[in-house]
Amino acid sequence: MSVDVPSAETTNLPSDNLAENLDETSPAGLTAEQYRRKMERRKQVQQQRLAQRTQEKGLIIVHTGNGKGKTTAALGMVMRSLGHGFRVAIVQFIKGAWEPSEKAVLGHWPEQLEFHALGEGFTWETQDRDRDTAKAEQAWEVAWGYLQNPAYKTILLDEVNVALKHGFLSVDRVLAGLAQKPEHTHVILTGRGAPAALIEAADLVTEMTLVKHPFREQGVKAQPGIEF
Amino acid sequence: MSVDVPSAETTNLPSDNLAENLDETSPAGLTAEQYRRKMERRKQVQQQRLAQRTQEKGLIIVHTGNGKGKTTAALGMVMRSLGHGFRVAIVQFIKGAWEPSEKAVLGHWPEQLEFHALGEGFTWETQDRDRDTAKAEQAWEVAWGYLQNPAYKTILLDEVNVALKHGFLSVDRVLAGLAQKPEHTHVILTGRGAPAALIEAADLVTEMTLVKHPFREQGVKAQPGIEF
Repeated sequence: MSVDVPSAETTNLPSDNLAENLDETSPAGLTAEQYRRKMERRKQVQQQRLAQRTQEKGLIIVHTGNGKGKTTAALGMVMRSLGHGFRVAIVQFIKGAWEPSEKAVLGHWPEQLEFHALGEGFTWETQDRDRDTAKAEQAWEVAWGYLQNPAYKTILLDEVNVALKHGFLSVDRVLAGLAQKPEHTHVILTGRGAPAALIEAADLVTEMTLVKHPFREQGVKAQPGIEF
Repeated sequence: MSVDVPSAETTNLPSDNLAENLDETSPAGLTAEQYRRKMERRKQVQQQRLAQRTQEKGLIIVHTGNGKGKTTAALGMVMRSLGHGFRVAIVQFIKGAWEPSEKAVLGHWPEQLEFHALGEGFTWETQDRDRDTAKAEQAWEVAWGYLQNPAYKTILLDEVNVALKHGFLSVDRVLAGLAQKPEHTHVILTGRGAPAALIEAADLVTEMTLVKHPFREQGVKAQPGIEF
């Protein structure tokens, strides 16, 4: 199975490389004193790393890959934003309704959080490309409204990558929108098959990679608290 | 940079392979009628996949890798469990306090959720292996109390993989505990460097892979709502 993620090179600062070398070497054979010295050095490196990072900016964040955790990690970020008192908007591009458990949780912040489920279900449910395209464009219009409003600090475009991958929504249109977002707004775009141009434009990209899945390997069904 | 994840083979059912083939081929060149037929077939395959999955069981879930989203995806699962009305326990193995934003959010469910931060900070803060080991063992004792109690449906052992990787906590001890958990309890273990034996014992393993990170590449600092 292939995932449309180019093998981007990460460009480390020298202090990042030092930190990685210290983290990767096993502490098992060290004496207590050697361990202490190693960690003292690691702390110096960490202080250097933090001193080199001063910029604040709204991030374009992509969660892609065929593993689990793309939407759940985005929901975790939404929770942190809510905990800080930020206003947040969520637009769901594929599903037409929120899972009851998610709705119950998200409903705790009526003043801070707007959430919309503007899809009609998975592609195999509708079986109608024109309708899927119209729905995706409507969802984008709603998202675009939030993207222009600096009052919203974090905007989650859930499963939008699937709409982009299937061509229901134009990548250029979404990239043009992201380029015009307010400077301090974070936007999270989730879903399999994120297009290369989106990954290129993003600041933070994580690929969730499937290592093992009970749904596949053990005949276990989707369960409450895990999948929904 | 290496991550301690063995390249586990996923064993697909034949219907999974069919679904993947249908998902991977691009729908771009198809007529509306060809598209409709393809999606009709995809729906049949999906129904077959669901019919083959009937088992319910508590899962051992591992989030590892050097990318972001390991803890945030676990928090997203915790939220879903809370939304279902389940009781949940979280034990944090490395940090000694919750971030204020996370505390503010988790505090919404005083009846359902217990959460503890039982570490003392990152390894480079303490610089004392014996103290780190004692702390990790205390945290495990608290976790073990929850693991024996079937009233808790979901238990998150946050950053426990880091304690295992550094040898602060014995892998065998944790595996023996997991083997004795109630049948329907889900346990989520997060952190870089999950040991191979834990991955072997787990049901669901996701590796969060770093594709691009602004903290490294652009000198952007950790920001509220994203990192904390």
